[in-house]
Amino acid sequence: MFITLDGGDGCGKSTQVKLLTEKLCSQGRSVVCCCDPGSTPAGEAIRQILLNRQDLSMTGITESFLFMAARTQLIQEVIRPALESGSIVLSDRFLLSTFVYQGYAGGVPPETLKMLSAAAVGETLPDLGIVLDIPCNTAAERLGKRSLPDRMEQKGEEYHRKVREGFLKFAAAEPNRYQIIDASPPPEEVGRAVWEAVQKRFHWE
Amino acid sequence: MFITLDGGDGCGKSTQVKLLTEKLCSQGRSVVCCCDPGSTPAGEAIRQILLNRQDLSMTGITESFLFMAARTQLIQEVIRPALESGSIVLSDRFLLSTFVYQGYAGGVPPETLKMLSAAAVGETLPDLGIVLDIPCNTAAERLGKRSLPDRMEQKGEEYHRKVREGFLKFAAAEPNRYQIIDASPPPEEVGRAVWEAVQKRFHWE
Repeated sequence: MFITLDGGDGCGKSTQVKLLTEKLCSQGRSVVCCCDPGSTPAGEAIRQILLNRQDLSMTGITESFLFMAARTQLIQEVIRPALESGSIVLSDRFLLSTFVYQGYAGGVPPETLKMLSAAAVGETLPDLGIVLDIPCNTAAERLGKRSLPDRMEQKGEEYHRKVREGFLKFAAAEPNRYQIIDASPPPEEVGRAVWEAVQKRFHWE
Repeated sequence: MFITLDGGDGCGKSTQVKLLTEKLCSQGRSVVCCCDPGSTPAGEAIRQILLNRQDLSMTGITESFLFMAARTQLIQEVIRPALESGSIVLSDRFLLSTFVYQGYAGGVPPETLKMLSAAAVGETLPDLGIVLDIPCNTAAERLGKRSLPDRMEQKGEEYHRKVREGFLKFAAAEPNRYQIIDASPPPEEVGRAVWEAVQKRFHWE
Protein backbone atom coordinates (compact mmCIF):
# COMPACT_ATOMS: atom_id res chain seq x y z
CA MET A 1 0.00 0.00 0.00
CA PHE A 2 1.43 3.26 -1.19
CA ILE A 3 0.03 6.49 0.28
CA THR A 4 1.14 9.98 -0.73
CA LEU A 5 0.36 13.37 0.82
CA ASP A 6 0.45 16.46 -1.36
CA GLY A 7 -0.80 19.99 -1.10
CA GLY A 8 0.26 23.61 -1.30
CA ASP A 9 3.02 24.93 0.95
CA GLY A 10 1.74 25.52 4.46
CA CYS A 11 -1.04 22.92 4.20
CA GLY A 12 0.35 20.90 7.14
CA LYS A 13 1.63 17.89 5.20
CA SER A 14 4.56 17.10 7.46
CA THR A 15 2.33 17.08 10.56
CA GLN A 16 -0.15 14.77 8.84
CA VAL A 17 2.59 12.40 7.68
CA LYS A 18 3.72 12.21 11.30
CA LEU A 19 0.19 11.67 12.68
CA LEU A 20 -0.64 9.01 10.10
CA THR A 21 2.64 7.19 10.71
CA GLU A 22 1.94 7.11 14.45
CA LYS A 23 -1.57 5.82 13.86
CA LEU A 24 -0.39 3.04 11.51
CA CYS A 25 2.48 2.06 13.83
CA SER A 26 0.13 1.96 16.82
CA GLN A 27 -1.82 -0.69 14.90
CA GLY A 28 1.33 -2.75 14.50
CA ARG A 29 1.68 -2.08 10.80
CA SER A 30 5.11 -1.75 9.20
CA VAL A 31 5.47 1.79 7.77
CA VAL A 32 8.24 3.35 5.69
CA CYS A 33 8.10 7.15 5.49
CA CYS A 34 9.88 9.13 2.84
CA CYS A 35 10.10 12.61 1.49
CA ASP A 36 10.06 13.46 -2.23
CA PRO A 37 12.49 14.90 -3.23
CA GLY A 38 14.83 13.33 -0.69
CA SER A 39 15.24 10.20 1.43
CA THR A 40 18.18 8.89 -0.63
CA PRO A 41 21.71 10.33 -0.68
CA ALA A 42 21.33 11.39 -4.34
CA GLY A 43 17.82 12.71 -3.68
CA GLU A 44 19.06 14.86 -0.81
CA ALA A 45 21.77 16.36 -3.02
CA ILE A 46 19.16 17.09 -5.71
CA ARG A 47 16.79 18.53 -3.10
CA GLN A 48 19.49 20.99 -2.07
CA ILE A 49 19.70 22.27 -5.66
CA LEU A 50 15.93 22.43 -6.07
CA LEU A 51 14.92 24.05 -2.83
CA ASN A 52 17.92 25.71 -1.21
CA ARG A 53 19.96 27.21 -4.02
CA GLN A 54 18.07 30.37 -4.70
CA ASP A 55 21.04 31.70 -6.64
CA LEU A 56 20.43 29.16 -9.43
CA SER A 57 18.16 30.17 -12.28
CA MET A 58 16.23 27.19 -13.65
CA THR A 59 13.40 26.75 -16.10
CA GLY A 60 10.33 24.67 -15.23
CA ILE A 61 11.51 21.85 -17.46
CA THR A 62 14.93 21.76 -15.77
CA GLU A 63 13.20 21.61 -12.38
CA SER A 64 10.94 18.83 -13.67
CA PHE A 65 13.94 16.72 -14.73
CA LEU A 66 15.54 17.22 -11.32
CA PHE A 67 12.38 16.27 -9.41
CA MET A 68 12.05 13.17 -11.60
CA ALA A 69 15.71 12.25 -11.03
CA ALA A 70 15.23 12.34 -7.26
CA ARG A 71 11.91 10.50 -7.56
CA THR A 72 13.14 7.63 -9.71
CA GLN A 73 16.06 7.07 -7.33
CA LEU A 74 13.62 7.15 -4.38
CA ILE A 75 11.36 4.60 -6.06
CA GLN A 76 14.21 2.23 -6.83
CA GLU A 77 16.10 2.60 -3.56
CA VAL A 78 13.25 2.97 -1.04
CA ILE A 79 9.64 2.73 -2.29
CA ARG A 80 9.69 -0.45 -4.39
CA PRO A 81 11.78 -2.49 -1.93
CA ALA A 82 9.52 -1.39 0.95
CA LEU A 83 6.32 -2.23 -0.95
CA GLU A 84 7.78 -5.59 -1.98
CA SER A 85 8.60 -6.41 1.63
CA GLY A 86 4.96 -5.70 2.55
CA SER A 87 5.39 -2.34 4.29
CA ILE A 88 3.03 0.57 3.89
CA VAL A 89 4.88 3.46 2.22
CA LEU A 90 3.99 7.05 3.11
CA SER A 91 5.51 9.75 0.93
CA ASP A 92 5.57 13.44 1.81
CA ARG A 93 4.84 14.72 -1.72
CA PHE A 94 5.08 12.71 -4.95
CA LEU A 95 4.36 12.93 -8.67
CA LEU A 96 1.19 15.03 -8.35
CA SER A 97 3.23 17.95 -6.99
CA THR A 98 5.33 18.11 -10.18
CA PHE A 99 2.19 18.11 -12.35
CA VAL A 100 0.85 20.98 -10.24
CA TYR A 101 3.92 23.14 -9.45
CA GLN A 102 5.98 22.76 -12.63
CA GLY A 103 3.07 21.84 -14.89
CA TYR A 104 -0.20 23.57 -14.10
CA ALA A 105 1.31 26.56 -12.26
CA GLY A 106 4.73 26.56 -13.94
CA GLY A 107 3.78 26.11 -17.59
CA VAL A 108 5.49 22.81 -18.45
CA PRO A 109 3.08 21.01 -20.84
CA PRO A 110 1.29 17.99 -19.34
CA GLU A 111 2.35 15.78 -22.29
CA THR A 112 5.99 16.49 -21.45
CA LEU A 113 5.45 15.59 -17.80
CA LYS A 114 3.61 12.43 -18.81
CA MET A 115 6.64 11.33 -20.84
CA LEU A 116 9.01 12.02 -17.94
CA SER A 117 6.67 10.27 -15.55
CA ALA A 118 6.49 7.17 -17.74
CA ALA A 119 10.28 6.92 -17.56
CA ALA A 120 10.73 7.88 -13.89
CA VAL A 121 7.70 6.46 -12.12
CA GLY A 122 6.11 3.90 -14.42
CA GLU A 123 3.40 2.03 -12.55
CA THR A 124 4.57 3.00 -9.05
CA LEU A 125 1.60 5.29 -8.45
CA PRO A 126 -0.11 5.82 -5.09
CA ASP A 127 -3.01 3.58 -4.12
CA LEU A 128 -4.25 6.58 -2.18
CA GLY A 129 -3.12 10.15 -2.73
CA ILE A 130 -4.27 12.55 -0.02
CA VAL A 131 -4.50 16.18 -1.16
CA LEU A 132 -4.56 18.62 1.74
CA ASP A 133 -6.42 21.76 0.76
CA ILE A 134 -6.41 25.12 2.51
CA PRO A 135 -7.27 28.64 1.36
CA CYS A 136 -4.19 30.53 0.13
CA ASN A 137 -4.41 33.18 2.87
CA THR A 138 -4.36 30.53 5.63
CA ALA A 139 -1.32 28.93 3.97
CA ALA A 140 0.41 32.30 3.67
CA GLU A 141 -0.21 32.98 7.38
CA ARG A 142 1.31 29.63 8.35
CA LEU A 143 4.28 30.13 6.05
CA GLY A 144 4.81 33.64 7.40
CA LYS A 145 5.85 32.04 10.66
CA ARG A 146 8.75 30.16 9.02
CA SER A 147 12.04 32.00 9.06
CA LEU A 148 13.46 30.71 5.76
CA PRO A 149 10.95 30.04 2.98
CA ASP A 150 12.36 27.70 0.30
CA ARG A 151 12.58 28.26 -3.44
CA MET A 152 9.00 27.16 -4.21
CA GLU A 153 7.50 28.93 -1.20
CA GLN A 154 9.04 32.20 -2.33
CA LYS A 155 7.04 32.38 -5.55
CA GLY A 156 4.21 34.93 -5.66
CA GLU A 157 0.55 34.86 -4.66
CA GLU A 158 -0.78 34.22 -8.16
CA TYR A 159 1.49 31.16 -8.46
CA HIS A 160 0.18 29.73 -5.20
CA ARG A 161 -3.41 30.38 -6.26
CA LYS A 162 -2.71 28.34 -9.42
CA VAL A 163 -1.07 25.65 -7.29
CA ARG A 164 -4.21 25.28 -5.18
CA GLU A 165 -6.42 25.25 -8.28
CA GLY A 166 -4.16 22.63 -9.90
CA PHE A 167 -4.28 20.27 -6.94
CA LEU A 168 -8.09 20.46 -6.83
CA LYS A 169 -8.39 19.96 -10.55
CA PHE A 170 -6.02 16.97 -10.86
CA ALA A 171 -7.41 15.31 -7.72
CA ALA A 172 -10.97 15.67 -9.00
CA ALA A 173 -9.98 14.10 -12.33
CA GLU A 174 -8.82 10.87 -10.62
CA PRO A 175 -11.26 10.33 -7.75
CA ASN A 176 -10.29 6.67 -7.37
CA ARG A 177 -6.70 7.63 -6.61
CA TYR A 178 -6.85 11.08 -5.01
CA GLN A 179 -8.88 12.30 -2.09
CA ILE A 180 -9.16 15.98 -1.19
CA ILE A 181 -9.23 16.78 2.52
CA ASP A 182 -9.95 20.18 4.04
CA ALA A 183 -6.79 21.09 5.95
CA SER A 184 -8.11 24.28 7.57
CA PRO A 185 -9.26 22.69 10.88
CA PRO A 186 -6.81 21.93 13.72
CA PRO A 187 -4.26 19.16 12.91
CA GLU A 188 -5.96 16.47 15.05
CA GLU A 189 -9.25 17.00 13.24
CA VAL A 190 -7.51 16.86 9.83
CA GLY A 191 -5.72 13.72 11.05
CA ARG A 192 -9.07 12.06 11.77
CA ALA A 193 -10.26 12.84 8.24
CA VAL A 194 -7.01 11.44 6.79
CA TRP A 195 -7.41 8.30 8.85
CA GLU A 196 -10.98 7.84 7.66
CA ALA A 197 -9.85 8.17 4.07
CA VAL A 198 -7.16 5.52 4.63
CA GLN A 199 -9.57 3.11 6.32
CA LYS A 200 -12.11 3.55 3.59
CA ARG A 201 -9.61 3.10 0.76
CA PHE A 202 -8.13 -0.09 2.19
CA HIS A 203 -11.45 -1.44 3.54
CA TRP A 204 -10.21 -1.51 7.12
CA GLU A 205 -13.50 -0.44 8.66
CA MET B 1 25.94 26.03 -36.65
CA PHE B 2 26.03 23.68 -33.74
CA ILE B 3 29.06 21.41 -33.36
CA THR B 4 29.52 18.81 -30.62
CA LEU B 5 32.55 16.73 -29.65
CA ASP B 6 32.02 13.40 -27.94
CA GLY B 7 34.12 10.33 -27.25
CA GLY B 8 35.34 8.06 -24.51
CA ASP B 9 37.24 9.45 -21.54
CA GLY B 10 40.83 10.19 -22.45
CA CYS B 11 40.07 10.76 -26.17
CA GLY B 12 41.38 14.34 -26.06
CA LYS B 13 38.06 16.16 -26.41
CA SER B 14 38.98 19.19 -24.34
CA THR B 15 42.16 19.75 -26.36
CA GLN B 16 40.23 19.49 -29.63
CA VAL B 17 37.52 21.89 -28.41
CA LYS B 18 40.33 24.35 -27.64
CA LEU B 19 42.08 23.87 -30.99
CA LEU B 20 38.85 24.16 -32.97
CA THR B 21 37.80 27.28 -31.08
CA GLU B 22 41.18 28.91 -31.84
CA LYS B 23 40.88 27.99 -35.51
CA LEU B 24 37.34 29.39 -35.81
CA CYS B 25 38.24 32.55 -33.89
CA SER B 26 41.34 33.08 -36.07
CA GLN B 27 38.93 33.21 -39.03
CA GLY B 28 36.95 35.95 -37.33
CA ARG B 29 33.96 33.75 -36.57
CA SER B 30 31.95 34.23 -33.40
CA VAL B 31 32.21 31.08 -31.27
CA VAL B 32 30.46 30.13 -28.03
CA CYS B 33 32.01 27.14 -26.22
CA CYS B 34 30.21 25.15 -23.61
CA CYS B 35 30.57 22.00 -21.63
CA ASP B 36 27.73 19.50 -21.13
CA PRO B 37 26.96 19.01 -18.27
CA GLY B 38 27.91 22.50 -17.12
CA SER B 39 28.26 26.07 -18.41
CA THR B 40 25.21 27.33 -16.46
CA PRO B 41 24.99 27.82 -12.68
CA ALA B 42 22.39 25.03 -12.36
CA GLY B 43 24.37 22.82 -14.76
CA GLU B 44 27.54 23.22 -12.69
CA ALA B 45 25.67 22.21 -9.52
CA ILE B 46 24.27 19.15 -11.33
CA ARG B 47 27.72 18.32 -12.74
CA GLN B 48 29.08 18.22 -9.20
CA ILE B 49 26.50 15.58 -8.27
CA LEU B 50 27.10 13.56 -11.43
CA LEU B 51 30.86 13.54 -11.58
CA ASN B 52 32.30 14.47 -8.22
CA ARG B 53 30.06 12.88 -5.61
CA GLN B 54 31.34 9.32 -5.64
CA ASP B 55 29.58 8.70 -2.35
CA LEU B 56 26.17 8.92 -4.06
CA SER B 57 24.67 5.73 -5.41
CA MET B 58 22.60 6.39 -8.53
CA THR B 59 20.94 4.18 -11.12
CA GLY B 60 21.46 4.80 -14.83
CA ILE B 61 18.00 6.30 -15.17
CA THR B 62 18.63 8.74 -12.32
CA GLU B 63 21.90 9.78 -14.00
CA SER B 64 20.05 10.18 -17.31
CA PHE B 65 17.51 12.54 -15.74
CA LEU B 66 20.31 14.60 -14.22
CA PHE B 67 22.25 14.85 -17.49
CA MET B 68 19.05 15.89 -19.26
CA ALA B 69 18.30 18.50 -16.56
CA ALA B 70 21.70 20.11 -17.07
CA ARG B 71 21.36 19.83 -20.85
CA THR B 72 17.94 21.44 -21.16
CA GLN B 73 19.09 24.35 -18.98
CA LEU B 74 22.23 24.68 -21.15
CA ILE B 75 20.15 24.70 -24.33
CA GLN B 76 17.77 27.36 -23.04
CA GLU B 77 20.33 29.56 -21.32
CA VAL B 78 23.31 29.27 -23.68
CA ILE B 79 22.96 27.21 -26.86
CA ARG B 80 19.71 28.52 -28.36
CA PRO B 81 20.43 32.21 -27.64
CA ALA B 82 23.94 31.82 -29.14
CA LEU B 83 22.66 30.06 -32.26
CA GLU B 84 19.93 32.67 -32.67
CA SER B 85 22.49 35.44 -32.49
CA GLY B 86 24.44 33.77 -35.31
CA SER B 87 27.34 32.34 -33.29
CA ILE B 88 28.84 28.93 -33.85
CA VAL B 89 28.27 26.80 -30.75
CA LEU B 90 30.86 24.18 -29.75
CA SER B 91 29.84 21.78 -27.03
CA ASP B 92 32.24 19.51 -25.14
CA ARG B 93 29.93 16.47 -25.01
CA PHE B 94 26.19 16.44 -25.72
CA LEU B 95 23.22 14.09 -26.11
CA LEU B 96 25.18 11.27 -27.79
CA SER B 97 27.19 10.71 -24.61
CA THR B 98 24.03 9.93 -22.62
CA PHE B 99 22.88 7.43 -25.26
CA VAL B 100 26.29 5.77 -25.04
CA TYR B 101 27.24 5.94 -21.33
CA GLN B 102 23.84 5.57 -19.64
CA GLY B 103 22.13 3.80 -22.54
CA TYR B 104 24.37 1.44 -24.52
CA ALA B 105 26.95 0.83 -21.78
CA GLY B 106 24.70 1.52 -18.78
CA GLY B 107 21.58 -0.40 -19.69
CA VAL B 108 18.96 2.38 -19.86
CA PRO B 109 16.63 1.41 -22.76
CA PRO B 110 16.99 3.60 -25.87
CA GLU B 111 13.19 4.22 -25.97
CA THR B 112 13.43 5.77 -22.49
CA LEU B 113 16.30 8.02 -23.54
CA LYS B 114 14.42 9.03 -26.69
CA MET B 115 11.47 10.18 -24.55
CA LEU B 116 13.74 12.19 -22.25
CA SER B 117 15.57 13.64 -25.23
CA ALA B 118 12.32 14.73 -26.87
CA ALA B 119 11.51 16.73 -23.73
CA ALA B 120 15.00 18.07 -22.98
CA VAL B 121 16.59 18.63 -26.37
CA GLY B 122 13.81 18.66 -28.96
CA GLU B 123 15.22 19.76 -32.29
CA THR B 124 18.41 21.32 -30.91
CA LEU B 125 20.62 18.59 -32.32
CA PRO B 126 24.15 19.13 -33.63
CA ASP B 127 24.65 19.97 -37.30
CA LEU B 128 27.96 18.17 -36.93
CA GLY B 129 28.83 15.76 -34.14
CA ILE B 130 32.50 14.83 -34.00
CA VAL B 131 33.21 11.47 -32.36
CA LEU B 132 36.82 11.10 -31.28
CA ASP B 133 37.80 7.45 -31.28
CA ILE B 134 40.82 5.84 -29.64
CA PRO B 135 41.61 2.29 -28.57
CA CYS B 136 40.70 1.66 -24.93
CA ASN B 137 44.28 0.97 -23.86
CA THR B 138 45.49 4.32 -25.25
CA ALA B 139 42.64 6.05 -23.38
CA ALA B 140 43.48 4.18 -20.17
CA GLU B 141 47.14 5.25 -20.49
CA ARG B 142 46.14 8.91 -20.90
CA LEU B 143 43.70 8.72 -18.00
CA GLY B 144 46.30 7.02 -15.82
CA LYS B 145 48.18 10.32 -15.85
CA ARG B 146 45.26 12.17 -14.23
CA SER B 147 45.35 12.32 -10.48
CA LEU B 148 41.60 12.26 -9.80
CA PRO B 149 39.47 10.22 -12.19
CA ASP B 150 35.77 11.25 -12.06
CA ARG B 151 32.74 9.05 -11.46
CA MET B 152 32.40 7.88 -15.09
CA GLU B 153 36.14 7.42 -15.58
CA GLN B 154 36.27 5.10 -12.57
CA LYS B 155 34.04 2.46 -14.09
CA GLY B 156 35.75 -0.73 -15.26
CA GLU B 157 37.42 -1.84 -18.50
CA GLU B 158 34.40 -3.72 -19.86
CA TYR B 159 32.26 -0.59 -19.43
CA HIS B 160 34.75 1.51 -21.39
CA ARG B 161 34.92 -1.10 -24.15
CA LYS B 162 31.12 -0.86 -24.43
CA VAL B 163 31.38 2.94 -24.44
CA ARG B 164 33.74 2.86 -27.41
CA GLU B 165 31.56 0.33 -29.24
CA GLY B 166 28.48 2.47 -28.55
CA PHE B 167 30.00 5.64 -29.94
CA LEU B 168 31.06 3.85 -33.13
CA LYS B 169 27.66 2.21 -33.52
CA PHE B 170 25.53 5.33 -32.98
CA ALA B 171 27.81 7.50 -35.11
CA ALA B 172 27.68 4.99 -37.96
CA ALA B 173 23.88 4.94 -37.76
CA GLU B 174 23.65 8.70 -38.46
CA PRO B 175 26.43 9.45 -40.92
CA ASN B 176 24.91 12.79 -41.94
CA ARG B 177 25.17 14.07 -38.39
CA TYR B 178 28.13 12.25 -36.83
CA GLN B 179 31.68 11.93 -38.06
CA ILE B 180 34.16 9.51 -36.49
CA ILE B 181 37.74 10.76 -36.25
CA ASP B 182 40.74 8.68 -35.22
CA ALA B 183 42.07 10.39 -32.10
CA SER B 184 45.22 8.25 -31.69
CA PRO B 185 47.63 10.58 -33.57
CA PRO B 186 49.19 13.67 -31.92
CA PRO B 187 46.67 16.45 -31.09
CA GLU B 188 47.69 18.74 -33.98
CA GLU B 189 47.12 15.97 -36.50
CA VAL B 190 43.71 15.14 -34.97
CA GLY B 191 42.96 18.87 -35.03
CA ARG B 192 43.59 18.97 -38.79
CA ALA B 193 41.16 16.07 -39.31
CA VAL B 194 38.54 17.83 -37.16
CA TRP B 195 39.01 21.02 -39.15
CA GLU B 196 38.61 19.15 -42.44
CA ALA B 197 35.36 17.62 -41.16
CA VAL B 198 34.05 21.07 -40.20
CA GLN B 199 34.99 22.61 -43.54
CA LYS B 200 33.41 19.76 -45.43
CA ARG B 201 30.18 19.81 -43.40
CA PHE B 202 29.66 23.55 -43.78
CA HIS B 203 30.99 23.72 -47.36
CA TRP B 204 33.78 26.11 -46.45
CA GLU B 205 36.37 24.58 -48.77
